[in-house]
Amino acid sequence: MRKILIVGAGKSTSVLISYLLDQAEKEELHLRIGDLDLENAKKACREHPRCDAFKLDIFNSESREAAIQQADIIISMLPARFHIEVARDCLKFGKNMVTASYISEEMKALDEQVKEKGLVFMNEIGVDPGIDHMSAMQVIDRIRDKGGKMLLFESFTGGLVAPESDNNLWNYKFTWNPRNVVVAGQGGVAEFIQEGKYKYIPYNRLFRRTEFIEIEGHGKFEVYANRNSLKYQSVYSLEDALTLYRGTIRKVGFSRAWNMFVQLGMTDDSFSMKDSENMSYRDFINSFLPYSPSDSVELKTRHNLKIDQDDIMWEKLLELDIFNPNKKLGIKNATPAEALQKILMDKWSLSQEDKDMIVMYHKFGYELNGEKKQIDSTMVHIGEDQSRTAMAKTVGLPVAMATIMILNGQIETPGVQLPIRREVYEPILSQLEKHDITFKEKETEYLGYNPFGEVGN
Amino acid sequence: MRKILIVGAGKSTSVLISYLLDQAEKEELHLRIGDLDLENAKKACREHPRCDAFKLDIFNSESREAAIQQADIIISMLPARFHIEVARDCLKFGKNMVTASYISEEMKALDEQVKEKGLVFMNEIGVDPGIDHMSAMQVIDRIRDKGGKMLLFESFTGGLVAPESDNNLWNYKFTWNPRNVVVAGQGGVAEFIQEGKYKYIPYNRLFRRTEFIEIEGHGKFEVYANRNSLKYQSVYSLEDALTLYRGTIRKVGFSRAWNMFVQLGMTDDSFSMKDSENMSYRDFINSFLPYSPSDSVELKTRHNLKIDQDDIMWEKLLELDIFNPNKKLGIKNATPAEALQKILMDKWSLSQEDKDMIVMYHKFGYELNGEKKQIDSTMVHIGEDQSRTAMAKTVGLPVAMATIMILNGQIETPGVQLPIRREVYEPILSQLEKHDITFKEKETEYLGYNPFGEVGN
Repeated sequence: MRKILIVGAGKSTSVLISYLLDQAEKEELHLRIGDLDLENAKKACREHPRCDAFKLDIFNSESREAAIQQADIIISMLPARFHIEVARDCLKFGKNMVTASYISEEMKALDEQVKEKGLVFMNEIGVDPGIDHMSAMQVIDRIRDKGGKMLLFESFTGGLVAPESDNNLWNYKFTWNPRNVVVAGQGGVAEFIQEGKYKYIPYNRLFRRTEFIEIEGHGKFEVYANRNSLKYQSVYSLEDALTLYRGTIRKVGFSRAWNMFVQLGMTDDSFSMKDSENMSYRDFINSFLPYSPSDSVELKTRHNLKIDQDDIMWEKLLELDIFNPNKKLGIKNATPAEALQKILMDKWSLSQEDKDMIVMYHKFGYELNGEKKQIDSTMVHIGEDQSRTAMAKTVGLPVAMATIMILNGQIETPGVQLPIRREVYEPILSQLEKHDITFKEKETEYLGYNPFGEVGN
Repeated sequence: MRKILIVGAGKSTSVLISYLLDQAEKEELHLRIGDLDLENAKKACREHPRCDAFKLDIFNSESREAAIQQADIIISMLPARFHIEVARDCLKFGKNMVTASYISEEMKALDEQVKEKGLVFMNEIGVDPGIDHMSAMQVIDRIRDKGGKMLLFESFTGGLVAPESDNNLWNYKFTWNPRNVVVAGQGGVAEFIQEGKYKYIPYNRLFRRTEFIEIEGHGKFEVYANRNSLKYQSVYSLEDALTLYRGTIRKVGFSRAWNMFVQLGMTDDSFSMKDSENMSYRDFINSFLPYSPSDSVELKTRHNLKIDQDDIMWEKLLELDIFNPNKKLGIKNATPAEALQKILMDKWSLSQEDKDMIVMYHKFGYELNGEKKQIDSTMVHIGEDQSRTAMAKTVGLPVAMATIMILNGQIETPGVQLPIRREVYEPILSQLEKHDITFKEKETEYLGYNPFGEVGN
C-alpha cells in the first residue's frame, strides 16, 4: 500500500481526490487528507475505505512532521506561499512532493539538496502553470526534433464561464479565486518581446493593450499580457525566439470595462480605506471621484471615465449595482481590492447550474529548411458541474497523474522541477486526452508578430 | 566659541553656510564642514577663517563619532535616509541636531530618549517641509486664539522656474533633485478629505485630477495632490477639519503633459530595462508602445495617448527630442525613471543665468462667532542667481536660524520635533521677512471645498 498525504482539501481538490480514489484499488493507494477544517477533509474522503481524514494545522510543526513522515508522497494543495513549509519537511524526511503552483525562489533554493537526496519535487503541474507547459513543450520538442528553429511562442490561458452559463454583461464569472482576478496584473510591469523588441506595459495600460485571438467554433477572445513572459526564455530554452508573449484570455470587452476599476483605483490592495465597514457601494466608488457639492456620483463617474451616454460600459457598471447607497461593504479596514471583490461576488459567483470553461491557445512560429511556418494549438474544456469544474479537472488530473507516476518510478529524475521533460508530459497528455482534455492543431501562414498582416503605405 | 558641524556640503547648502559664516563673528560660531568629497567641503568653506573643511564618510563610524563628539550642534544635510546614523550618535554624545527632512519612523522612535537627555532634534525646518509648517501654524494659532474653529486647510508648494527664465513649453525646469520630480506621486495612493469625505487618487489619475489656484500678480497655477495630507490631522491638530488637502504646484498644463509619461510607464522605477545602455531615446519610448512592422513610433504615440494633430502636448514631446534615434541613453540597467530623467535633464537643467522660484499657497477656512470665514496666504520668492536660489534660501535660512536659536537657548523644548510651536516659528518667520520671504494674506468668502461655487440644477 502506497500512502499519499494530501495537505489542504479546498474546493479545487475534488477531482484530484476522486481520481486518486478511483485508482486506489488498482494502484494500491491509501489517501490521508489533512485540513485545518476536519469537516472539509471528511467531506473530501466521502467515507471511502482507502481514505482517512484528519485535522491538520500546517503551522503546528509537530503534527505536520508526523503526517509527512508517515506518507510515501505528499501533495500540497495549500495556497502557494505555504508550500515551502511542507517542502522543507519532505526534504528532511526524504519524501517526494507535488504542487500545482509556480516554483518560488525559496522552493528553487532547495533544488540542490533535493537532487542530493534523489527526490522529485514536481511543481507547476496544474493547468496554468501545468498543462500549458506540457502541451507547449510537446510541440516545441517536435519542431526541434525535425531540425526546426523556434522564432515565436505565444501562449494564452483563461478560466471563463461556459457559453451556456454566460449570462451577464461582463461575460465573466469567478471560476477560481476571486482575489487573484481582482489584483491580476499588479506588482510589476508586463515584459515581453515581439520581433526582437522588448516591450513593457504598465498596470494602468494593461487592460487597454489587449490582443485578439479566435478559436474555431468558439469565437473571438481577447488577451492581456502576463507579467512574466521573459521567464520562458530560459524555462523553454527560447533565448533566440524573436517573439515571446504570454497572456490571460477573457471574452471580448471584459478588459476595457475592467479598466474602469483600474483607472479609478478600485483594484488597489495596498492601503485600507477609512471607515470601510460603514461605506455603501456608492460611497466606495465616490471615494475615487472628485468632491462636488451638487453633481451626482453617476455623472462624476461618466465624466471621469469619459463614458458616453450609449456606451455598454455604463450598463456593465449598473449591472453591478455599484451606485447603490443602501448596500454596505461591511468589511473592516478593507482595501479597495477587497471592497471591489465583495461587490463583484454579489454578481459574478457561479450559481448551482453554472458551468465553467478553460481555454488555452498556443502559437508556435518556426523556421524549418529555410521556410517559415506556424502551428496554432488550442484547447477548450467545459466543466461538468459545480464540483467537476473545468478548473478542478485541469488542475487536479495532472497533479493526480504525476503523483501516481512518481510512486511508480515513471518519473524519477530528481530535483525541484516543472513538467517540461518528455517522460513527464507524454504520458500525462495522453492520459488527459481520455478525459477529453485535448489540443487541436492547425498549420497556418507565418506572419511573425503581425497577426493582421499590416503593411505600411 | 560654539562649534557647528555640518554633515554634507551639497549644492543646496550654499545659503545655509554663508548665513552662518556671516553671523560667525557676532554669534561666536565655528563651522566644521564634513563631506565625502573634500573639495566640496573646502569650496563650501570659501577659506573663511572660522570654517574648517574635512573629508567625512558617514559610514565610517569612528570618524563620524569623533566629529560629532567635538561639535556643539550638528546640521545634517545628507539625503534623508542617512540622518538616522547621525541622530544615533547625537543621542549617544548628547548633541542637538537639525535637519530639513521629514521625520522618519526611525527618527521618531528616538523621541523618548532625546527628551530624557534634554536634547533638541529639530527636523522639517526647510521650505516644504519647513516654512509651510511655520506659516500655516502661525495663522491657525491666531484663528484659535480668537476662538475660531478650523474647517478647512489646504496647502500647496512648488519649486518652479522663475518667469524670466521660463522659456520652454513645459514651463518647468529642474530646480532641485530631478529624481524626486520623476518619481513624484509614486509609492502609494494620494489620500485627503474634502467636506468630510475621504478621497483617494491612484498614481495613474494623479496628474489628471489637478486643481487650480491663482496668485495675484503671478497668474494661475495648477496643483496635484500629495500623498500624505491626512498626516496633518494629528500634526496640526486638525482632526475636526472637514477639508484637508496638500499639493504640489506646477504651471498650468504641466501635469496633463507629464501624465503622458505616467500613462506609458516611463516613470516606473521598479525594474531595469534590457540593454538600456544602447537604447536610443526613440527605442526608449517605443518600448512602451505596441510593436508594429510598419507604423512609426510617432503615430503609435499619438494613437496610444490620443493626441490630436493640433494638441500642444505633441509639441511638448518634440521639444524633448524624445523621438531621436541617434541620442543614446548610455545608462546600464536603467529603470524607465532613470532613462526619462536623463532625457529631461538635456532640456530642463537650469542654465547659468536662470533663476528659480518658490511658490506657496495656504487656504484656511474657519468658523468664528457663528460666521464662516477664509484666509488665503501666499508666498512667492524668486532666486537671486544659480547659487542663491530660491530653493537654497528657503531651505537654508530656516535651518541656519534654528541652529543659532538652539545654540542660544531660544529653542529648548526637548524632543524629536518639527517647527510648529510659537517659540520656533515666530522668530524665524520674522527673520525670514528680512530676507524677503514674506506671506501675503487676504480674507475671502468661505465657500468650503467648492472653489468655483458650483450648485446643482
